[in-house]
Formats: sequence, C-alpha cells, structure tokens
Amino acid sequence: MREPEVILTLIEVAATLAFALSGFIEAARRRMDIVGITAVACTAAFGGGTLRDVLLDQRPFFWVEHSGYLWLILGLCMVGLPLLRASHIDFTERAMRVPDALGLGLFGAAGTSQALALGQPLIVAALTGVITGVFGGVLRDVLCNEVPAIFTDHRPYAVCAFTGAWVFIGLDHVQAPEGLALTACIVTTAGLRLLALARDWRVPGWRG
Amino acid sequence: MREPEVILTLIEVAATLAFALSGFIEAARRRMDIVGITAVACTAAFGGGTLRDVLLDQRPFFWVEHSGYLWLILGLCMVGLPLLRASHIDFTERAMRVPDALGLGLFGAAGTSQALALGQPLIVAALTGVITGVFGGVLRDVLCNEVPAIFTDHRPYAVCAFTGAWVFIGLDHVQAPEGLALTACIVTTAGLRLLALARDWRVPGWRG
Amino acid sequence: MREPEVILTLIEVAATLAFALSGFIEAARRRMDIVGITAVACTAAFGGGTLRDVLLDQRPFFWVEHSGYLWLILGLCMVGLPLLRASHIDFTERAMRVPDALGLGLFGAAGTSQALALGQPLIVAALTGVITGVFGGVLRDVLCNEVPAIFTDHRPYAVCAFTGAWVFIGLDHVQAPEGLALTACIVTTAGLRLLALARDWRVPGWRG
Repeated sequence: MREPEVILTLIEVAATLAFALSGFIEAARRRMDIVGITAVACTAAFGGGTLRDVLLDQRPFFWVEHSGYLWLILGLCMVGLPLLRASHIDFTERAMRVPDALGLGLFGAAGTSQALALGQPLIVAALTGVITGVFGGVLRDVLCNEVPAIFTDHRPYAVCAFTGAWVFIGLDHVQAPEGLALTACIVTTAGLRLLALARDWRVPGWRG
Repeated sequence: MREPEVILTLIEVAATLAFALSGFIEAARRRMDIVGITAVACTAAFGGGTLRDVLLDQRPFFWVEHSGYLWLILGLCMVGLPLLRASHIDFTERAMRVPDALGLGLFGAAGTSQALALGQPLIVAALTGVITGVFGGVLRDVLCNEVPAIFTDHRPYAVCAFTGAWVFIGLDHVQAPEGLALTACIVTTAGLRLLALARDWRVPGWRG
Repeated sequence: MREPEVILTLIEVAATLAFALSGFIEAARRRMDIVGITAVACTAAFGGGTLRDVLLDQRPFFWVEHSGYLWLILGLCMVGLPLLRASHIDFTERAMRVPDALGLGLFGAAGTSQALALGQPLIVAALTGVITGVFGGVLRDVLCNEVPAIFTDHRPYAVCAFTGAWVFIGLDHVQAPEGLALTACIVTTAGLRLLALARDWRVPGWRG
C-alpha cells in the first residue's frame, strides 16, 4: 500500500524539478528578470499538477502540502541564476529535450494514476494524465506570450503522453503491479518522445 | 421537474458542438497541428462551462460526468481534419457567425439558469451567464496568442449575452415556465448578435 | 474580533478599486472597447483575490458574497468611459504608480493574513500574499497579449510584496495586534515599491 505512494512522491519530486528547469531555461532565454524566471519556473513545475488537483478536486495542492518544493525551487532559482550566468552555458532547445521528456512521462503517469484511483472514466483519466504532463508547459508558453509550442510544432508530445496513459490504464486493468504500470507508462511516454524527436516524426496538421 | 433538465442537457450538447467547431476553425486557420486543433476545440467548447462550474463550485465538471462529450469531440477532430482538408472548404469569419451566436445564447442561458438555481445574487447570475458564453472564446484566443476578439472588435457580443441573461432573470422572476425563459434568453441573445452583425452596430470604445 | 474583519473589508474595497483603475487605464491605452475595458478592469481587480480563494479553497468568492463590488465596477466603467474620454486626460505609466503600489500592499496584506488564519505553512502564506497582489496584473497583461510586465521590467514589484508579507508574518509571530501587522505590511510593500521606482532600483536578470 505505501510503496506506490513513495514511488508517486519520488515521481512528483523528479518531474517537478525537470519541469522547473525547463521553465527556468525558457524564461532565461527570453531575458526575463529573476522574478519572471522564478515565476515561470514555478508555473512550469506546478501548473500541470495544480490543474490536475483542481480538476480532481483534491486539496491541499501538493505544493501546499509539501511546501518544501517551494523553498527548493525558490532556492535553486536564487542560487542557479548567478551560477549559471557566470558559467557561460547557453541552453539550447536540444538541452531541454531529456528533462522535458522525463517530466512528461513522470507527470502523465502520476496524473493518470490519481484519476484512476478516484474512479474517473477512462477517457478522463487519460486526459488527466496528458493535462498533468503538458499544462505546465502550456502555461509557461502563455506567460512568455507565445502560442503553446505543443500546439504548432507538429512534433508528437501530447500524443506520447496520451499513448503512455493508455499503457498505464491497460496494465492497471489487468491488475499488473502499480510499479510496473508506472514504469511502463514513463518509459513509453519518454521513449516515444525522444524517438519522435530523433526520427523527426511529424503530427498531421491543417493543409501541411 | 425532469423536463428542464432534459432541455438543459440538450442545450449543453448543442452549444458544446457549436463552440468546438469555432475552436476547430480558428485553430485550423492558424495552421496548428491536430493536437493544437483538438486542444483549442476542447478549450472553446469546455472553457466557459468549466469556469462556470469552478465559480459555482459544482463537481464533477459536466464533461467529466458526461465523458461521452470528450470521445465525441476527440473523434470529430480526428475524422473532421482529413475530411475537411480533402474538401477544400475555406472557413471564413462569416462561416463562424451562426454557430457562434447560437452557442453564445445556449451557454448564456445554461449559466444564468444554474446560477439562479443555486441562489446567487442577480448580478452574479447574469455575469455567470456571460462568462459561460464568452470564456471559451476568450481562452481560445489566449491560446492562439491573440487579444480576445470580444474585447477589441467593437461588436456587441458579451453585451448580447448580458441582455439575454436579464431576459432570463426577468422571466424567472415572474415565474414563467423555465422552457419559455430559456427560449427567450437564447432567441434574444442569438438574435441580437446576428442583428448587430447584419446592421454593423458598434460598441463604444476609448476615443474611437 | 470584529475590528480586524472591518479593516480587512476596507482593505479589500480600496485595493479592488485601485486595481480596477489600473486595468481600466491599461485597456483604454490599448484602445479596447467598453466590453474589453470592463472585463480587463474586473480581471485586474478580482483576479488576484479569486486565485487566492481558489488556492485556499474559500467559497463564495468575495465578489460573489459582496456582489456590490460588481455593480460598483460595472457602473464606474460605464460612467467613467465617457467622462474620461471627454476630459482629454492622458493616462501615463507614471499615473498608474501610486494606485498600483497601494493595491499591491493592500492585497498582499489581505492574502497573507487569510492564509495564516487558515494555518498554511509560512512560505505558502507569503506566496499567497504575493499572488493575491500580483496575479490580477499578470492576468491583465495576458488578456492584453503582453508578457506580464512584472516578469521583464527588472523593477522590484513582486519582491516588495514578498518582503511585506514576511513583515506581516514576523509581526504576527510575535503576536503584534493585527492592525499593526497589516499597516506595517502595507507601508513596507507600497513604500518599497515607490522608493524602488524613485531610485531606479533594478532586479537582477539573466545576463543583464
């Protein structure tokens, strides 16, 4: 009983840090000040999970219950900004791929799992996983005044999370151990995402 | 007792489909991929009703309770995209007018009705109707990275929904049958909207 | 017992009006129509408080419970638009500074106070204050299709609210009278903000 909870918590920590980094990088590339960088990092990290909790009517929010997350991300932004500024690292789109794919898989698994545990319909559980995985990034792009990248770049992203969510639902349906279902969901989602980027797979659009 | 519920459900189905189409068209015109088109269609369709449910603290959301909506819109987007792409139809602003006006009237009536049923103050009920009608479109425009059209185009839109909401509230106050109040609200809102477009009525702005 | 409630209510009224004015001015400068101006004014005024209430799971929203706010702001927008349009006043960025700084201090104090009263962790209480103070402005800028000014202008704003929130939390911790804590929070926040603008203090950013 408690082991899945521990796994879910670890998933949340790792995914939160990966998404915060993606927000940090995006805001830093847009030359925001430290307030904007911190706000976008927190939004990217907590946006998906918060919307999930609003949709599932779960309180307190996980970043309220575990307020250490807030200290961690605030602290990392304060410490990280001068360190990274001094290090002359340039963050490229490529540098964001791996943490982003892992965060997508991790958040998608957590969202799908929680929605199923609350007895939601399967399609709602799958979309809760997708929303948990992608909504932080959507909000991040809206705050940066861009069309959300996942809507226009013709690269599979939400589709990977949707596929991973159904892998989770299928394994859950045949009563596989939760650890297996979570792992399979994360590996499927992150693997599909990285494979899609490596092979340049395209999502169909409206007249090209 | 049950008849108004059936009517409200039918209203929700029709309005949801009309708004999803408006989101589909807007996203397709912006050359989004199928993920973006589906997401914007769902946002346009469910955004107003979801904000209404958050404001009125109603759970589950109607698209969670009736998850068939999700299958329907996901399916229509998957099927509709290749069909419409092959058909060489060009969606113009004019093509969106009638479904949009009907959706505005239908959502406005549903929102006002639910807020009144929960004993909200009259101004809150009227604004709940307006928000239910317009917020899907506002979110749609925010996701497309535009200033919401209803804030800048000087065309009556929210004003029509506001007027229709007060027609509903007035008829409800004199204890008219709910079917009559709903019909009058929808006819007033959609009629005013289409009349305003036909006659080119303008909403006053700041120094023209 | 009742005196702090009266003070909190007065704070809410004054802050709401100050923020509605900032939204009115911003939307008017962007040549929106009266629907857009009213919507942006309401969003700037109620956005922070509404997000606070969603985060703290407080219902009804304060603008639902005190629906007079809605009548007041709707009325002021209807009356204010022709009056101000006729008066040939041009609102400059400078004209928005004082109401904005006061609103920031007032909302920040109210948000921190309510979160503490509900027993939230200190960091959550401080961030609730900041969010209550700044989120109306963030939403205002998103609706105007701009990157939120507070993320990019390198001027202390959220930082002032954060400092003021910790002043409140410190005084609350030593059991100072609530009126003193509120006053100190407001004076600190608004004073820091106006001082920062006068002395041209800068928030560090990513490579300048």
